[in-house]
Formats: sequence, structure tokens, C-alpha cells
Amino acid sequence: MNFDTILGSVDLLEYLRGKQATFLLAGSVSKTSEISNILQSENSTNSNLTPTLNAEFLCLKELKSLENITKTSKNILKPVLITRAVHELKPFSNIEILDLGLELKPKINYFKVHSFDIKPSARIDDGAKINAMEIFQKGVEFGTNYESKDDYIILSESAIGSEITAVATAKALGYKCDDFLSNCVKDVSRDIKNSTIETALNRIQLDDDVFTKLSNVSDNTLIFNAGFILGSTSKNLKVMLAGSIQMATVLLIVNSILESMQGAVDSSNIALCTSKNKNNKNIKRLLDQLNFPINAYSSSFDSNELEDSVGYGAALCYASINGVNKKELVSKIDSLLEE
Amino acid sequence: MNFDTILGSVDLLEYLRGKQATFLLAGSVSKTSEISNILQSENSTNSNLTPTLNAEFLCLKELKSLENITKTSKNILKPVLITRAVHELKPFSNIEILDLGLELKPKINYFKVHSFDIKPSARIDDGAKINAMEIFQKGVEFGTNYESKDDYIILSESAIGSEITAVATAKALGYKCDDFLSNCVKDVSRDIKNSTIETALNRIQLDDDVFTKLSNVSDNTLIFNAGFILGSTSKNLKVMLAGSIQMATVLLIVNSILESMQGAVDSSNIALCTSKNKNNKNIKRLLDQLNFPINAYSSSFDSNELEDSVGYGAALCYASINGVNKKELVSKIDSLLEE
Repeated sequence: MNFDTILGSVDLLEYLRGKQATFLLAGSVSKTSEISNILQSENSTNSNLTPTLNAEFLCLKELKSLENITKTSKNILKPVLITRAVHELKPFSNIEILDLGLELKPKINYFKVHSFDIKPSARIDDGAKINAMEIFQKGVEFGTNYESKDDYIILSESAIGSEITAVATAKALGYKCDDFLSNCVKDVSRDIKNSTIETALNRIQLDDDVFTKLSNVSDNTLIFNAGFILGSTSKNLKVMLAGSIQMATVLLIVNSILESMQGAVDSSNIALCTSKNKNNKNIKRLLDQLNFPINAYSSSFDSNELEDSVGYGAALCYASINGVNKKELVSKIDSLLEE
Repeated sequence: MNFDTILGSVDLLEYLRGKQATFLLAGSVSKTSEISNILQSENSTNSNLTPTLNAEFLCLKELKSLENITKTSKNILKPVLITRAVHELKPFSNIEILDLGLELKPKINYFKVHSFDIKPSARIDDGAKINAMEIFQKGVEFGTNYESKDDYIILSESAIGSEITAVATAKALGYKCDDFLSNCVKDVSRDIKNSTIETALNRIQLDDDVFTKLSNVSDNTLIFNAGFILGSTSKNLKVMLAGSIQMATVLLIVNSILESMQGAVDSSNIALCTSKNKNNKNIKRLLDQLNFPINAYSSSFDSNELEDSVGYGAALCYASINGVNKKELVSKIDSLLEE
């Protein structure tokens, strides 16, 4: 088990070796996922439940909100299997859930589930109808006030439809972001995704301000997490942004907001951590567009190009800086797949 | 390494995954153990030292209070070997000893040994001669004032004779508790145990109050721990009650005391954790008689029906939520057995 440096230097991740981590899972639903055939999975009927199920499985290894588990739903849950496997071998000290607009509250006791009175966002081809300023401020406030006993935070996401909203957001904010969806060769829904993004982008004006753009084409998790990052820097919280295009987009949002208010950020405590993926050269290209330096790492564990979500890429990075044995991990993932 | 849910849901134990634990070992002697042939072991001459030796071995891997270790005394110490093995692989943050009436103070430096000025209790067939109210109040006070840096407490026991006093206590308080001793098929002393319990029960009246009953047929550890539990709930301390029939009886005592004073308890932070054992269906039957809900878990680690004491069942549950590898654990136990 090891990791690679996409951007920056090894120092930050090495510093976190052996330290205690709190794992935050931010979940939300964008109704963009309800656009016909837009998701890869054959069965998208239950897809709006995915963030809820991911939260339950991560915490409890149970899917309380789903009675019949089909093969397809198991497939949706592959990323969380990896995160859970890591948690079983080298437990996070603490897991908390952020409800940023879930359809169904996860059925979990004891674990903190933070509620922010946020509703699922609408389809971006029809305007996401988000109060972006309000969501952002909730993120800032949470990040500013968040207290942790641990040495760092892993901030992950399970936001259904967020691959699409992330690309739309990056483009709306004027960043070059062309090669993301095209990389999923197996994705029969790619054309639908691209046309959805195009429709969404047609609804906004180049000179709209950042928050107007976000209100139309983004999703709750992206916007909230950008606020969280800005809030967290005020208290020197070390944060691993756990994800791929979504977390890169969070940083782009931070960048655009800072630009618009001519602000600056000390980004030295922030790292993006993701899975091993061919797309990572595109992640680097996105991050190169930031006005501030950033550390970014990817796990060297081969996860067969499985899209990074539920922070599994960061969980693998965490495993690699905590002495988890690769063979044991593979066998743990296999045993979870079989159960 | 995994655990099973006997009662309640997985949530509490999953919540404790990866969190820091203080291990408390409560030890006492009931002279019931001196009744001729009542204990399984051939050599019961030293049996009153068992709680002292368990404390020493758990903390130090040394038996300072015993010079010659016979095969039999090694056998008595099997449970603590498992607890110690877990402690070596994934150390408890803190171990403290509660002297609730030991014959000999354990020879341990640095570790906290709490003294409560409590003497060994007498044979229950002759009246245990305990000031139950006083012992209970000492438990309440300790539980109320106990400060821990850790996320939860594992409260274990090594109380010589406590299997017998537990059954006598449960029966005296009016609970159905018939199948416990009969399950030890190898136990040649079963008849003596049963007749001892019968004699003890004959000494009390049905309408005696709870504390009068406890004073006659119980032991210090059972009574103190019931107080501890009630005290601990006042500060939301999360407590793993580590044991089988003994810890179930602690909860029955709590139940009877609450009933007698028409009180209630928030039991959501308490879990009973024990070893894998055929008797666990009887544990469930005992716990089903409580007026409050309770979480109960057993380790799935096969320990060959070895009676749960020194909290080894809970230690195995702790191992399973802290990424301890089964193979490593087996080899650690083996190496401790050989030493």
C-alpha cells in the first residue's frame, strides 16, 4: 500500500501518518439523477437512496433503508465497501454524517448526523434552484465551529448526480474541464450527461456572479464543502478532501469565490486525496487552474477505475499511512462483497 | 474477527469502533468459593488469589503474588490470557483495578488500584453478611465521579465464586434463571453449587427488600457494579459490561432497585459484551426480563465454551472493532499459554 503525489509534495500526507482521523461523509441528492437514463446503473429507481445507504453501510455494515439488495444496488455500493473495509482494518476514530439534502435520513443511532435543513436540489437542466449563498454560509459556519478531538478530517461525499453537477459547475465558473465524462468508456449515458450539462450552461450568463451560477448548475454538497473549506482554514484544521472531480470542483468554487471578493486562503492544511485512476491527469489539469497551491495525492491501490466516491480513494490513502496490509485489505473487501 | 448482536442493534458497538477504551477490572472474593469441592478446579487452595493474580497478569504479564505456577493455576488463568493477548495486540489506553474485597492487594505499581475499604464477603449458604446498601452507594458514587479521558469504559470482573452468587442473586430477586449451572456438563461440582444456592435462598424471605436479599445471597462485585452503572448514566459515560451471567445479573439488580424506587434509567449507553457461548441464549432470556432496553453483543471468536471472566469476551469484541487480526490473536494466545 502506497500513495502517489499528483501535485505538491509528500510532506502533508507523510505528516498525517499514524495520526487520528475523523471521517465526515457529506450526502445530498440532485434531481439531475432522475433524468432518464443519465446514470450508468441499470436500476436507477433507488439511486436517490444511495447516499443514505452509503452512510448506513459505512457506519453499521447494514442497509437499514433498503430491504431487497439486488446485484445492481450492490454495484452502486462498491465504493463504500472499500471505505468500510479500511474502517474495519484500521478504524477511523470517528464518523459523522452531514445531511446536505438527502431524500431519506439514514437510520443510524449514536453516530452524529448533522442536519442543516437543506432540501435535495433540482435538475440542472431546469435550474438547480439552490440558494447557493445560504448553503455556502452554512458550510462556512460549520467549518468555522467544527471541533474535533482528532488530528485531521477526511471530508468525503456521496452526492448522487454529482459527477454531472461538478463538470457543469467547473465549466460555468469558466474552468477548462472537458475530458472527464469522456473517460468513462463504458458509460452509455455519456451523451445524455453532456447534453444535460450543455442545457444547464445555456441557462446562465457569462457575467452572472459566482453564487448565481452555483444556484443554477451546482449541487448542495459542492457548495457546502467549499464553505466548509474556507471556514476550516480559520482554525488550522487539517482537511483531506476525499474525492476526484467533485473535490477538485470544490476547490475551484473556493478559488472563484476568493477571486470575486479578492480574498486569499492559506491552503497549506488542505489536501485532495483520491483513488488510482486514469482521470487523475485531468484532476491535475483542473487543480493547475487554482490561484493557490494545493497538495493532491492518489492511492496506488488498483481499484479498476471504479469512480471515487464515499471517499474510498482517501480511505486507501489513509490505509497506506496507517500500516494496513494490502493482502488483508483485498481479502476484507472480498469478504464484504460476498456477505 | 467479528461480533454478533444478542439483543438490540449493532449501532452502539459500531459507534465505538476505533475509539479509545479504559479497561476496569473489578475484583472480589466471596468465601462461597471455600465450600468444599464447589469449584471446578482440582486445586482450589489458591482460588481466593485468582482475582489478584488476574489483575497482575492483565497489567504486567507477571504473577507477583504466586511463586509456583501449577498447571491448574494456569488453567484458572485462561480467561486473562485472552484479555492480555488482546491488550498486547491493541492495547487498552488505560487499565485500572477496583479492589472490592480482595484477599491480597495486587502487587502493581503505576496502575491505579482503587480501594473502597471493602472486605471479602461470606459464604452465601451462611449469609453473605454484606452491607449491600453501603456497597451499592460506593458504586454509585464511583460511577458518578469517575472521570475518563477515553471514549468508553469496559467494566470487567474477576470475582471468585461469582457464578454461584450471580445465580443466587438473580433467583432471590425473582428472575427466571435456571439453566446456567446445568450447562457446565464437565462440572462435577454442579450439585454442590445448586444445593448451596438452595440453602442461600432458604435464608431469605420473598418479601425481603432488594438490599436485604443482596446482603444475604450476593457478592460485592455484583452490587458495586450495579451502583456503578446507575452512577455512570448520570454523566453519559458509555460502558461495556464485560461478562456473562455476572453482568446480566448486575443489570437485573439495577432493574430491581429501579423497580423498588419506581425509578428509570437511560440505558442507551450501556452494552453487555460477552464471549461466544452456548449459554448466550440464556443470557438473552435473562436480559429479556429487564424493564429497560439493552444492547448485548457476543464475540464470534470461538473460545471453546471457556467461561467468560476478566472481561475476555468484551476484550474479543473490542479486538473485533479495532482491526485485530484473528490469526495474530490465536498465535498471541498460544505464545502466552506456552510462556
